[in-house]
Amino acid sequence: MTIKKMTGLARLRAWMTNAGLDGLIVPRADAHQSEVTAAHDDCLAYISGFTGSAGLALVLNDRALIFVDGRYQIQARHEVDPADFEIHHLRDEPVDQWLRAQARPGWRIGIDAMKVTLTLHDRLEAALAAQSALLVPLERDPFEAVWDDRPLPPLGNIRAMAVEATGERSTEKRRRIAEQLREMGADWLIETQPDNIAWLLNVRGSDVEMNPVPHSFLALGADGTTEWFVDARKLGNDHAAFEITGVALTRPEDFLDRIARLSAGKVIAFDADFTPHAVRARAGTGDGKILARMSPITLAKADKTATELEGYRACHIEDAVAATDFLAWVMTHAAERLGTTNPLTELEAETKLLAFRSERPGFLEPSFRTISAAGANAAMCHYKAEPATNGVIDDKAPYLVDSGGQYCTGTTDLTRTVMLGSASAEMRIAYTAVLRGFLSLLSARFPTGTQGHQLDAFARRALWDAGLDYDHGTGHGVGHNMLVHEYPHRFDKKPNLHGLTPGNIMTIEPGYYKEGAFGMRIENQVEVIADGAGFCRFSSLTLVPIDLAMANLDELSIVEIRQIDAYHAHVRSVLEPLVRAQTVPFLIEQTRPIVERRSQYPNVMRPERGASIIASR
Amino acid sequence: MTIKKMTGLARLRAWMTNAGLDGLIVPRADAHQSEVTAAHDDCLAYISGFTGSAGLALVLNDRALIFVDGRYQIQARHEVDPADFEIHHLRDEPVDQWLRAQARPGWRIGIDAMKVTLTLHDRLEAALAAQSALLVPLERDPFEAVWDDRPLPPLGNIRAMAVEATGERSTEKRRRIAEQLREMGADWLIETQPDNIAWLLNVRGSDVEMNPVPHSFLALGADGTTEWFVDARKLGNDHAAFEITGVALTRPEDFLDRIARLSAGKVIAFDADFTPHAVRARAGTGDGKILARMSPITLAKADKTATELEGYRACHIEDAVAATDFLAWVMTHAAERLGTTNPLTELEAETKLLAFRSERPGFLEPSFRTISAAGANAAMCHYKAEPATNGVIDDKAPYLVDSGGQYCTGTTDLTRTVMLGSASAEMRIAYTAVLRGFLSLLSARFPTGTQGHQLDAFARRALWDAGLDYDHGTGHGVGHNMLVHEYPHRFDKKPNLHGLTPGNIMTIEPGYYKEGAFGMRIENQVEVIADGAGFCRFSSLTLVPIDLAMANLDELSIVEIRQIDAYHAHVRSVLEPLVRAQTVPFLIEQTRPIVERRSQYPNVMRPERGASIIASR
Repeated sequence: MTIKKMTGLARLRAWMTNAGLDGLIVPRADAHQSEVTAAHDDCLAYISGFTGSAGLALVLNDRALIFVDGRYQIQARHEVDPADFEIHHLRDEPVDQWLRAQARPGWRIGIDAMKVTLTLHDRLEAALAAQSALLVPLERDPFEAVWDDRPLPPLGNIRAMAVEATGERSTEKRRRIAEQLREMGADWLIETQPDNIAWLLNVRGSDVEMNPVPHSFLALGADGTTEWFVDARKLGNDHAAFEITGVALTRPEDFLDRIARLSAGKVIAFDADFTPHAVRARAGTGDGKILARMSPITLAKADKTATELEGYRACHIEDAVAATDFLAWVMTHAAERLGTTNPLTELEAETKLLAFRSERPGFLEPSFRTISAAGANAAMCHYKAEPATNGVIDDKAPYLVDSGGQYCTGTTDLTRTVMLGSASAEMRIAYTAVLRGFLSLLSARFPTGTQGHQLDAFARRALWDAGLDYDHGTGHGVGHNMLVHEYPHRFDKKPNLHGLTPGNIMTIEPGYYKEGAFGMRIENQVEVIADGAGFCRFSSLTLVPIDLAMANLDELSIVEIRQIDAYHAHVRSVLEPLVRAQTVPFLIEQTRPIVERRSQYPNVMRPERGASIIASR
Repeated sequence: MTIKKMTGLARLRAWMTNAGLDGLIVPRADAHQSEVTAAHDDCLAYISGFTGSAGLALVLNDRALIFVDGRYQIQARHEVDPADFEIHHLRDEPVDQWLRAQARPGWRIGIDAMKVTLTLHDRLEAALAAQSALLVPLERDPFEAVWDDRPLPPLGNIRAMAVEATGERSTEKRRRIAEQLREMGADWLIETQPDNIAWLLNVRGSDVEMNPVPHSFLALGADGTTEWFVDARKLGNDHAAFEITGVALTRPEDFLDRIARLSAGKVIAFDADFTPHAVRARAGTGDGKILARMSPITLAKADKTATELEGYRACHIEDAVAATDFLAWVMTHAAERLGTTNPLTELEAETKLLAFRSERPGFLEPSFRTISAAGANAAMCHYKAEPATNGVIDDKAPYLVDSGGQYCTGTTDLTRTVMLGSASAEMRIAYTAVLRGFLSLLSARFPTGTQGHQLDAFARRALWDAGLDYDHGTGHGVGHNMLVHEYPHRFDKKPNLHGLTPGNIMTIEPGYYKEGAFGMRIENQVEVIADGAGFCRFSSLTLVPIDLAMANLDELSIVEIRQIDAYHAHVRSVLEPLVRAQTVPFLIEQTRPIVERRSQYPNVMRPERGASIIASR
C-alpha cells in the first residue's frame, strides 16, 4: 500500500518537473464536482490514500500538503502517510490562504482546468498573484500521463424517470427554466451538475454507485433549444421511454468546442461554484458575455412537487421498517454473541442492513456508503468500515449507523446511535445534549424564507451548554432518488443564503465525537411544511425509534418529553403492522412513553430538575 | 414644509439637467459614513424630509424613489410626501436591484464620489452596466450649488482621552496597527472612519451631538508615520494633552491630493465598506496597489482593554440609577396626571430622563436621541418625539424608552417598556415572547469566535412560536465613549462574519411592533466574557429592572424564572443604596422574586403549563 502511494506521488512529481511546474493542486473532484467520483477520477486517493468525499492536495517538489475539513481530520490521519503529506484544515486554513502566505515569487502551480471551478480558480489565482506567482490551468488531465493502471471513465446505463414519480414533464421543466433564462437576460445556460441535468430531463444514471445521476453536460437555450452532451451508449438503443424529443444528442468530447461556438456574441449563464474554469476559458474565446450565478435549476429542483413529496413519505415508511427491523436485529445479535469468538461486527451489520432494505418494495441501492461504526470508529464522522478496521459492536461504547436508500420514489438518510451496555456519565451527558439539540431544531417554527445559518445553533445549544460542539454542518438538502447531499440548502455555522420554503427536504443531524473513544449522532430527514401565514416548520419523514437508554431523562423538559412521546407514538402506529414479528417487542420498548419509564428514572417528573445543565451555570 | 421640500427636489432636478445627468443618487451619508450626520450633510432630508439614520434616494427627471430599511418603513410614510417619492425597502429591494431591472440604456446617473463607498459604487456601477447605463462619480458635491441656506461644516472641539480611561497609549496603538500593516503587506492604511481615528489617537470630538468623534481623515504608514487630516482649529491652541507627538497635521482639504502622492508605487489598504470611491480614484492615479479589506483598527477597537471594561461597568451603574429613578418617576407621574388636562407626554419624559442622567457623575450627553414613545408611536422603531407627534403616556398602550448616555468611561444603551394600565391579551402574548427571546439570547453559552448570525434566532424563537417577528437586527457593538452603534459585530439574520470574543461589547434587543397600535422592546447592553475553555457567555452591563406586569408569568419555564429572579436580585442589591428614596418602593416591587407574585399569578408554579405556546402547536 505504502509503496504504491509513494510511486503515485513520485510519478506526479516527475511529470511536474517535465511540465515546468513548481507544484500541482489536486482537488478531490471530477468535471461535475461530484461528491462521489468514479474510480477514474480518484486522483487524490491515488497519490495520497485519502478516500474522504472532500479534500485537496498541494504537491510541491519538496513537500506535499493535504487539506481536509473537520469531518475528515481523524480519518485523514489514519489513511495518509505523514511522511508524504502534512494534513491541514480545509476550512480554517484553506489552501488559498496558505499560498497567499507561503508561495514563492515565480512559482508556477498547475491545476486541471476541467476539475477546478471558476470560484476556486479565481481564489487560487488571486492568492498566488499576491506572491507574484502564477496559477496555470492545464488543458489536459495530468493523470492521463501519470496513472498507468487508471480505470476507464464510467459508462453506466441511463433510465427514464416517469412523470408518475416526478410530477412534472421534462418539456414543462425546460419551458419554465428557459423562461427564467430570458428574465435573467441569458441566451444559454451551461449545466455541468449531473443532478440538475437528471432533474431537467427526468432521467437517472448509474455512472457511480449510490448517486443515480448520469455524468454528462447540457446547454439549454432561452428559446428552449436543448443540447445534451452525453455518451449515447448509456441510453441504449430504445429511446422511447425518454422525454428527449427535440433534444440534440452530442458527444461529451465535443462539449468545450461547442461552448466556444454557441457563446459567440451571446450571454452565457453558469454557476461559478460548480462550472469548470475550462468552460469560461472557452466561452471567453468568442465575444460572449458571461453571467456567473446560481443555476435556476438548482432552486427549482429543491422545490419538490406534490408527487415527489408523496414519494418521499412513502419510501420513508419502507425505509423505517428496514431500519427498525435492523436495529432490533443488531441489539439482539450483538447481545447474544457478546464475548463469544464470533461477535457481531460493523461489516456484518452493514451487510444485514442492506439485506433488510433489499426486501422493501421500491428499494434500488444505498444512497451512500453506510457508516456502520462501533467504539472509536464512530468518532470519525464519515467512517467506512473495512476489513482492517472492522470493529466489534460491544457493550463498551455506542454503535452509530448512518445510512440511507435510493428508492423509486425518493432518497432516504437517517442516523441512529444505540448502545448495548451501560453508557458512561460522559456518554450520557453528550447523548442527552445531542438529543436535546436534535429536538430543538426539529421543533422550530420559523418565517418562510429563513436561511440555514439562522437555525443551525438551535441544534448546538444544548451541546454548547455542556461545553461541547461538533465540527460539521447540522443538515443538508436531499435529492429525489438523486444525490443524498443536495445543494443549495444547508444548516451550518457558515452563511447559507437560500431561504427555506414549504416543499424543501432537509436533514437534521447534530452529533458529538470524542476522538479515540466514541461518536454519536441522531438524524431525521424532514420536509419543510407551511405552519400558519408566513411561517414554516419541519415534519419528520424518518419514522424510526430514537434510543433513550443513553439519555439522562431527568434533564429533559416537559416540552421535550411531550415531543419525544408524540413522535414515538406516531412511529409505533405506523410501524407496528409492518415490521417483523420479532421486531415488535423492540419497537414497543423503544417507543414507550417516557412517563412509563419512571421506575427506571424516578426523577423524571420532578420539574425543578428540568434543564439542569443550564440552570446550574 | 411641503413647499420647501418641493423646492429642494426641483432645484436638484434643474441642476441634474444642466450637468447632463438623467438621475442622481443621494445617499444619507457624509464622507465618513457617519450614522449621525452634521446638518451640513443632511442632503437626503433636504430633498425628501426623511430624517432616519439610513436611506438613499434615486432622483430621476420624472420620478423619485427613496429606499429605507425595515426600521424606517413607518417613519418614512409619515415624513415623506408620496407625491414626491415612492418608498422602497432598502434591504429587500435595494437600489442596485431596481436599477438592474429598470434603468434605461444610455442613462447617466450621478453620485457624489466622497459620499459613496467603494462597495456601493461598484454595486451601482455593475447594476447600471447591465442595462448599458453609466454611473458618474462626481468630483464636487452637487448640493453646494443647489442648497442655498446650507449649514456650514462643523468645527467641534477635540478633547484628549487620557490613558487612565483608555488603558493603552496612542503610540502603542499605532505601533501595533503598523505591525499589522506590515503583516498585511500594506505600506499605508487610509482611515476615514471617525471612531477608528478617535480610538487610534485617544481623542474625542464634538462635530455632531451624541457621537463624540471628530470628522477627519488619517494615513498611517507601516513604519508608524502618521498624518492626520484635521482642521487644526478643532484642537485649540494648547496641544499638551494630546498624544500627537510626531503626528503630522494636514488640512482636510489636502486629503485627496496627498493620497495621490503617497500612493505612488505603494500598497494602500482601506476598508471598501467605508472608504469613499474618491480615495480609490485618486490612489489609482499613481501606480499604487490597492488592498481593500477591513481596517485592522476596527477589530482592535472592538477588543476592549481591561480599563475600558471597568469603565463600562462603572458608568452602567450610574446609568442604571438614572434610568430606574426615571422609570419610577414616569409610573408615578403618568398615573397621577392620567385623565387630567396636563397628562405626562413623551417630550416631558425625555427631558426628565436627561435631567436624571445629568445628575450622574461622569455623564456628558445622551449617546443617541432618546426614543420616548407612547402608544402607536412606539411601533416606529426609531421614533423621535416632536411637538407635532408628542404622545401622552396613558393606560391604553405600553410606553417604550430606548436611551443611553455618553460617560467619561463608556457609552450606555438600554430599552425598557412599561405600561400604566392593564395590557391586552395581544400585548401580553407579544411582551412575553419578547421577554423570553431576550432571556434566551442573554443566557446563551457559545464557542469563542461564534458569529452574530448564528445567535440571532435565539432572540426570535419565542416570537416565531407566536407567529411574530421584528424587522431589525437583534444587537450591535457599542463604542467606549464613542459611537453607540459600533461596527463590526452585529446580531442579525444577515451573515456577520466577525467572531465574538471576550472583551466585546454588544446589545441584546428583541422587540415587537404593531403598526398604528403599539411597540415594545427590551434591551440590555452586555459584555462577552470567558466561560470555561473555548466558550463565552454574556454578562449584563445594564442593571435596570425589567417590567413583568405585561408578561404572562405562567408561560415562563423554571429556568427562565430563575434567570429573571437572579438578575433582579443583583439589580436590587446594586441599586437600592444609590437610587432616590422615593424610587426604593418601585425598585423593590419591580425586583420581587416571581414566586412572591403567586397571588397575582396562581398558575406560575404549575409545571405542566410551562412553555404552553410551544406545546400547544
